[in-house]
Amino acid sequence: MSTHPLEDILHPRSIAVAGASAGGRGGGFIWPLQELGFEGDIYPVNPKYPEIMGLKAYGRITDIPGPVDFVISSVPATAALGLMQDCVKKKVKCVHFFTARFSETGRKDAANLEQEILRTAKEGGVRIIGPNCMGVYYPAGKIAFNSGMPRDPGPVGLASQSGGALGDIVGFSAQRGLRFSKAISYGNALDFNECDYLEYFTEDSNTELILMYIEGLRDGRRFIDVLKKATAVKPVIILKGGRGDAGTRATASHTASMAGSRQMWQSMVDQTGVATARDFEEMVDIAVAFHFLPPEAGRNVGVVGGSGGTSVLAADICEEAGLNVIPLPQDIRDDLRESGSPIWDWISNPVDFSISMGDRGNAASIGELMGRHPDFQTLISFMHGPWRRSKEPFDIDKHMQFGLHNVTKKPLITVFGNRPRGRGDEADELARLSALIQQRLVDEGLPTYPSITRAASALDKMLSYYEKRSGGAR
Amino acid sequence: MSTHPLEDILHPRSIAVAGASAGGRGGGFIWPLQELGFEGDIYPVNPKYPEIMGLKAYGRITDIPGPVDFVISSVPATAALGLMQDCVKKKVKCVHFFTARFSETGRKDAANLEQEILRTAKEGGVRIIGPNCMGVYYPAGKIAFNSGMPRDPGPVGLASQSGGALGDIVGFSAQRGLRFSKAISYGNALDFNECDYLEYFTEDSNTELILMYIEGLRDGRRFIDVLKKATAVKPVIILKGGRGDAGTRATASHTASMAGSRQMWQSMVDQTGVATARDFEEMVDIAVAFHFLPPEAGRNVGVVGGSGGTSVLAADICEEAGLNVIPLPQDIRDDLRESGSPIWDWISNPVDFSISMGDRGNAASIGELMGRHPDFQTLISFMHGPWRRSKEPFDIDKHMQFGLHNVTKKPLITVFGNRPRGRGDEADELARLSALIQQRLVDEGLPTYPSITRAASALDKMLSYYEKRSGGAR
Repeated sequence: MSTHPLEDILHPRSIAVAGASAGGRGGGFIWPLQELGFEGDIYPVNPKYPEIMGLKAYGRITDIPGPVDFVISSVPATAALGLMQDCVKKKVKCVHFFTARFSETGRKDAANLEQEILRTAKEGGVRIIGPNCMGVYYPAGKIAFNSGMPRDPGPVGLASQSGGALGDIVGFSAQRGLRFSKAISYGNALDFNECDYLEYFTEDSNTELILMYIEGLRDGRRFIDVLKKATAVKPVIILKGGRGDAGTRATASHTASMAGSRQMWQSMVDQTGVATARDFEEMVDIAVAFHFLPPEAGRNVGVVGGSGGTSVLAADICEEAGLNVIPLPQDIRDDLRESGSPIWDWISNPVDFSISMGDRGNAASIGELMGRHPDFQTLISFMHGPWRRSKEPFDIDKHMQFGLHNVTKKPLITVFGNRPRGRGDEADELARLSALIQQRLVDEGLPTYPSITRAASALDKMLSYYEKRSGGAR
Repeated sequence: MSTHPLEDILHPRSIAVAGASAGGRGGGFIWPLQELGFEGDIYPVNPKYPEIMGLKAYGRITDIPGPVDFVISSVPATAALGLMQDCVKKKVKCVHFFTARFSETGRKDAANLEQEILRTAKEGGVRIIGPNCMGVYYPAGKIAFNSGMPRDPGPVGLASQSGGALGDIVGFSAQRGLRFSKAISYGNALDFNECDYLEYFTEDSNTELILMYIEGLRDGRRFIDVLKKATAVKPVIILKGGRGDAGTRATASHTASMAGSRQMWQSMVDQTGVATARDFEEMVDIAVAFHFLPPEAGRNVGVVGGSGGTSVLAADICEEAGLNVIPLPQDIRDDLRESGSPIWDWISNPVDFSISMGDRGNAASIGELMGRHPDFQTLISFMHGPWRRSKEPFDIDKHMQFGLHNVTKKPLITVFGNRPRGRGDEADELARLSALIQQRLVDEGLPTYPSITRAASALDKMLSYYEKRSGGAR
């Protein structure tokens, strides 16, 4: 168990929801706890209702009979200071303020109020997550803030200054087979800031990979030290919001953040080897590479399963991403020739599916030969879906049998472009089957990307981290 | 009507399919013609069958009683020279050789045979499309080479050295609302080459936008002249396959192409302003911008509809793509203040949906105000799908009402990220609704992108072309 202050805070005996109501967002904070089956007590707090979501409601935090460790606040900003005073009296450990409209509004009175709340909390020994954030998703602790968040935990830790970003990252990740240890949205970072969350995830033994969406650093000097320690032991992926002028203006009105200079960020990347993403999709792409591939996966790639043009572009794209698309080794050619393949001198890497399929007897074995050959460190395989609706029911087991993952233990990336054809019913059916294949690839533990461009870039970023960490260079 | 030799060739009175059979690819060339309702005669040629796909089959081309203008060859390479000799006798205008395994095999005898076929054709006045290609898709002429290719024509012309690439580009395009004048796959470019196809599309009055997938130039010197003429009158997007070492090796075995140097390509881009794409997705993204947006769409963008983190990243991504995310003009702030909006001094561009939605009375009107303001040249709007399954049936008309396209005539780009949540039935249902919304956006004539990153980059590439053409610089 970590001795970090957040460890205790994230294991509350009870949670009170201040400003709870049956319909609005306050009620919304109760339902996800019930849905995941939070095992402690849940106390709705709202003087207007006797009962909310089947639970007895209290007029004030101080009216609750038992101990209250954690409070989720959805009261208006004007009621937030009073709530904090009650929390001090009640010896609450931490308040998560969903409550917003503080410093991010750009107004002096709102910023002053925020500071007053912080002062009261510090004097009273109460910690703060937020304000202006969605708070905590901790599936193993049965805590969530939205309905439908995955119940099963995983090794990915996420700290996000934006709640919407957290939702998007968790949502995209779920489709790609990633699950979370904890994901915390921290908004204006009034008390706990980026350094605390990163430190916590670095210590947390259930977290193997750390993702951060950051709009501005509250403590840049400390952050670089914390980041160095973090990247020395686990991969960290940072998505920085507010990289340019317009983005910086937007971070100010979103989370009252001042963006650091580009140079400072670049120097941080150079010093730590942290992987950086430019959007949510890329962040999840890189996370998929870290999660599913071993550090030993290398830059010498073998590419199979694309047709002619796809193979040519795959070679270009991999090379442009810093991967080595090595020529087909001579001993594989020799094996092919000995087995009587008429394409032994024609085929190359990438293996053009439309050539190799013309040579059916030996087509499947080329990928297998590459999988056994020491020169290839990572294989990338294009997967195919059904192109048109068939009269026979679709047999996914049979379809998956053709996958290269059945014949190699080598690090393998699958590219599955969801590309339904036609319109109407047929398109619907093909889209459904595509989703089914995609899900099956994920369930079989394979890193899966919608395009070779995204796959190659993610592999490069993952490898760069390990190369930096081991002191090597590509 | 164009006087280009391809114009006559693409309007054949009859098409013969040599090497036709009921089951294989030869039969496959007959069925798409029947499916689209080709109005001329279709003659299967195969001595083994009396009838194929309901049509009388002939033993040889020379046995066909009527004139034969166009021949699709799927005979083996060993029979191709004999076929060409027959075509000369029959005064055929053009042979499309699906037949492959010529110079692309890297074998001297195969390359010699290819040259012998060319010599025979030249002496006999027969032109060649291919070999080693899928040939012609010409929806208005009711010619297709695959089942399920869209029946409706459009203004996009495509010449592709790869048939698979052509299929992918047409397929991706169809989902995004693009339709084709003609799309021609030309493989080894033995007779007609990239210059001829580009010249033809430049002259073709039904083509407003030209797409090319090129692995190698057969006539680089002529190509740059033809490209200059083309880009002076219509946008051209080139996707170059074989940009690096591995890609160049792959083009050799795919279409026997030698890649030109990077410098030569860059100089061509600089001289002509041609838009370049790095993969199929980007090519279609840029085509969508050219097709749906007017040249007057400019770099001063207003972004609406994203939540906080999404808005911050949208600002960064647009700026990194060379767009100007201008601050919200003071007169819009004044209008908002006068209308009593409490967020008049807080809101910015991008408009944070989660702020503006808290101010419901005025939320919708901010996008409308931006749409009326002369400082904004292009609007980018995030569209939302249903987040979870509802008890009421989904009402797409009602859903679409919230779109900004209902309140502005300004150039508008929609970003609709297909992001179904959950698993199983609910995910299926949400994926179906997402596809429905996506289709509806396309049907309403809107350029639609799966991410802001792809939208911003496509807009930049489109604008760069018009800026270059008008002699301006950004």
